[in-house]
Amino acid sequence: MPEQQFKLHPRLAADTHWVCDWPASTVLLMNDTRFPWLVLVPRVPDVVELFQLSAQQQQAVFREIVVLGEAVQSLFGADKINTGALGNLVSQLHIHVIARFSGDCAWPGPVWGVGQVQPYAEPVLAQRLDDLRAGLPKP
Amino acid sequence: MPEQQFKLHPRLAADTHWVCDWPASTVLLMNDTRFPWLVLVPRVPDVVELFQLSAQQQQAVFREIVVLGEAVQSLFGADKINTGALGNLVSQLHIHVIARFSGDCAWPGPVWGVGQVQPYAEPVLAQRLDDLRAGLPKP
Repeated sequence: MPEQQFKLHPRLAADTHWVCDWPASTVLLMNDTRFPWLVLVPRVPDVVELFQLSAQQQQAVFREIVVLGEAVQSLFGADKINTGALGNLVSQLHIHVIARFSGDCAWPGPVWGVGQVQPYAEPVLAQRLDDLRAGLPKP
Repeated sequence: MPEQQFKLHPRLAADTHWVCDWPASTVLLMNDTRFPWLVLVPRVPDVVELFQLSAQQQQAVFREIVVLGEAVQSLFGADKINTGALGNLVSQLHIHVIARFSGDCAWPGPVWGVGQVQPYAEPVLAQRLDDLRAGLPKP
C-alpha cells in the first residue's frame, strides 16, 4: 500500500492512543473509558469510503476488521461487537470496533455522540495498551 | 450456504421491505423515508457476529457490503455512506448501509434510535423498490 502519503487525521490522532500497526491498518484505542473502543485506520491516503479501496486492500482491511472484532470480544467478554464505518465528522476512512455490554451507558443505542467522553487516567491507560498489545493476534 | 434453516428475524421483517436476494445476503429497504437506508442480511442461520461467518461467507458478504455501498452512493448522490453492524436490539447478523446527506435530520450523528420513523406511503414505496431493483448491480 502507498503509505508514503498517508497521514492520520489530526482529529483521530487527538481522540485516540496508538496501539499497533497491522499490515493494512493502524489500530487505535479511543480515549474513552466508558467502552473498550478500538478504531482501525487503513493506511491508504485520501480514502473516504470502503469501496474506494482496491480489491486487495478491501480484503486485507476486512480481514483485520474480523480479527479485531473477535479479539475484542474475547479480551473484554463483550455481549456484542458494534462495527461501523461512519465518517460524518472525520472523512478519513476509519472503522470502529466497539465492545458493548447490555447495561453500558449507551445500551442498546449506538455509542457515537452519546454523553461525555471519559478519558483514561495514565496508569489505567498504560495497562490497557499493554493488555491490547499482548492480547491482539496478528491478522 | 446452508439456507434451509435461515429465517429472517421478525423485527427485521417488520421494519423493512424486501428488495432482492443477492448470492450471500438478502437486501432490505428500511421502511423510513428520512434516509435511503438499506440492510444486508446474510442468509446464514444463527450468526450474530461477522467473525462467526466462515472465511468464504465473509468474503461474499464483504463484497456485497462494498457493492451495495457504492451503488447506494451512486443512486442517491449521498455525501457519505454509513456502514454498520450493531445488532444490540436484533442479534441476527445484519449490516446497515445508509446514504447520508449533510443536513439530513440526524447529521452528523448516526441514524439509529434518532427521532421518529417515517414510513413510506405506497406509491413512493413502489417507485423506490422499482428504482432499487433496476439500479442495484449484481455483486
